[in-house]
Amino acid sequence: MRRVVLLTDFGTADGYAAAMAGVVAAAAPAAAIEHAAHDVAPGDIFGAALALSRYALLYPPGTVHLVVVDPGVGTERRAIAMALDGRYFVGPDNGVLSLMLRGDARARVVAIEHGALGGEISSTFHGRDIFAPAAAQLARGEPLEALGSTVDDPVLLDVRSPSRDENGVRGRVIHVDRFGTLITNIPASWVSGSGASAGRSLVRVGGVEVGPVRRTYADVAPGELLALIGSLELLEVSVRDGRAADRLGMGRGVAVEMSPVS
Amino acid sequence: MRRVVLLTDFGTADGYAAAMAGVVAAAAPAAAIEHAAHDVAPGDIFGAALALSRYALLYPPGTVHLVVVDPGVGTERRAIAMALDGRYFVGPDNGVLSLMLRGDARARVVAIEHGALGGEISSTFHGRDIFAPAAAQLARGEPLEALGSTVDDPVLLDVRSPSRDENGVRGRVIHVDRFGTLITNIPASWVSGSGASAGRSLVRVGGVEVGPVRRTYADVAPGELLALIGSLELLEVSVRDGRAADRLGMGRGVAVEMSPVS
Amino acid sequence: MRRVVLLTDFGTADGYAAAMAGVVAAAAPAAAIEHAAHDVAPGDIFGAALALSRYALLYPPGTVHLVVVDPGVGTERRAIAMALDGRYFVGPDNGVLSLMLRGDARARVVAIEHGALGGEISSTFHGRDIFAPAAAQLARGEPLEALGSTVDDPVLLDVRSPSRDENGVRGRVIHVDRFGTLITNIPASWVSGSGASAGRSLVRVGGVEVGPVRRTYADVAPGELLALIGSLELLEVSVRDGRAADRLGMGRGVAVEMSPVS
Repeated sequence: MRRVVLLTDFGTADGYAAAMAGVVAAAAPAAAIEHAAHDVAPGDIFGAALALSRYALLYPPGTVHLVVVDPGVGTERRAIAMALDGRYFVGPDNGVLSLMLRGDARARVVAIEHGALGGEISSTFHGRDIFAPAAAQLARGEPLEALGSTVDDPVLLDVRSPSRDENGVRGRVIHVDRFGTLITNIPASWVSGSGASAGRSLVRVGGVEVGPVRRTYADVAPGELLALIGSLELLEVSVRDGRAADRLGMGRGVAVEMSPVS
Repeated sequence: MRRVVLLTDFGTADGYAAAMAGVVAAAAPAAAIEHAAHDVAPGDIFGAALALSRYALLYPPGTVHLVVVDPGVGTERRAIAMALDGRYFVGPDNGVLSLMLRGDARARVVAIEHGALGGEISSTFHGRDIFAPAAAQLARGEPLEALGSTVDDPVLLDVRSPSRDENGVRGRVIHVDRFGTLITNIPASWVSGSGASAGRSLVRVGGVEVGPVRRTYADVAPGELLALIGSLELLEVSVRDGRAADRLGMGRGVAVEMSPVS
Repeated sequence: MRRVVLLTDFGTADGYAAAMAGVVAAAAPAAAIEHAAHDVAPGDIFGAALALSRYALLYPPGTVHLVVVDPGVGTERRAIAMALDGRYFVGPDNGVLSLMLRGDARARVVAIEHGALGGEISSTFHGRDIFAPAAAQLARGEPLEALGSTVDDPVLLDVRSPSRDENGVRGRVIHVDRFGTLITNIPASWVSGSGASAGRSLVRVGGVEVGPVRRTYADVAPGELLALIGSLELLEVSVRDGRAADRLGMGRGVAVEMSPVS
């Protein structure tokens, strides 16, 4: 049984997400339909890409990830489908799938040709008219290549990379999660592997000192700020039993530094 | 496999929606359970009816749509079940199912008799005690008529119709969606078919001129207002990459006009 | 087919809930995955426990309830799994499962041993690394005892009980639901069975008189306050077609009295 997992910024109350699910249910009756989220902030391509990277490969091979955060609907942006590590991905070619391409991931990507889908295509709801039918086709077991021709240049998100030298590591807050945690782009491997080894380096976010990198929330008292490695294997800044983003008044884009204790 | 698709205004955090799903899971173990939405605005019968009309017939024949937006629970309003175009619908008889009856749709409607369900009936939670058991019965393949006797007068929503004459078309905003789009009751067929043909008519909403009916968002610059045909085949007013409802300070009920260019 | 039903405070937009669902899908491919709610207020253990008590036993035997509201992640709190009335429960040992233990419920409870699960365990996301794998193991039909050793002292929520004497009944508001209804801890059995029998007793909440206990919303005019027995078999205070919590400016913890008419 293949599974189709939906991720959109459509909300649920208007019935847009259910329309997509209905199309999948009709065109791939044996597929299980899962809803990852429909409350991505409207148009937040990066937020959706990051959420997808958190769960996509935890689903078993054969899963079809149907991702529609598509502020460019009705423009000339392409619709793409992708096979990576046994999973399939369908969505607009605006970078929302591109965080899956990091590291040494090898993917096949095709541009979806509308003619491969049948049916009429509206100018405002490609989730229903293009992406859901394409996902259903993959869920039925049809090959990726039946959807269209290979593309070599999928749009990649312009993710600013962190940097490091002998003075430490510099990165950015890339996301604030539901718990007010500031998630940075500094990978765990740089924390443990840097000359400034975990317990002996100091983290600063937006100029505010957070202290050393801790192992777990219980290493600080309730209400205290701490830095630790989060579940995405990235450096995070949290408040135990609180919200770091609110405490610090900071969000996406703020500078983060990690420097050796002098 | 039959599918039961839930639509309510119960939210999810209190467990009301899960209670309904649990009743279906227990009484129709082979049915797949889908959640369309539970965040319909509390008591918004029209909003739920419109959302339902967006997705109900995209699900395959045999699907059971379980719809509970029921401000009248505990009054004498009837509970009904309906078969239309191979799909089933269960909900309160307050109009929430009635947009499915437009056009030449032919439906069979019955009033659910509590005795047909077994179990005790609370005075406050008919979603759990009446509607979910009735939906499960249909999902098991039992006939509609086993639920109760035919009714000929289901409650219809009092939807104000648009009007047209040689001076143009007059309608209303009937809904604001998650993206701030103003959805009107003017059908696409009146736009293309009217003497004021699409590109040559001017749309005004609440007295503000929006311009001609466009084909797609890309026809205007980001941030600009536009009128276009939306995915419900109704005239809509949007802002490209923005929110028309907020920009204009307008919502449900506002007058919309479409007049020929003079 | 076993079913895994998720309840968390993780929201959906960040992908945490989908990560848990993905782990279940990979480790128990035949299980159906249901989402009860992910919008429990962050850290609201009691709210989650109450929601769970509303639906858990409506699902059929064999269902696995996966509940993660876990402000203590990264501390020494235990992870537990429980069998009760043919259903299974997995979650942190912080009381979130404990409302299921009321009355004469007989449960077996074990402390989940990480070694039983395989895989690495992060310090911040036990939903993905401990609770979802444990739930999947139960969904595959493995016995509870394979997860760990019996515990006799699961953490119980400190739920203040109501009291009664010849002057009447005294309790508390324990929850405000989505509709603004004040749910109290006074059981229905005390309402009908008390000397102050339903129609002949007066309810006061936070010092404000609400009147007698009614049978249904229709017993008062729209906009009026009323007391009635809710779907949890507890005394509730509502406003017909309105929100009692907002009208009264009251919430969790407020005193409720029910006294005989003098």
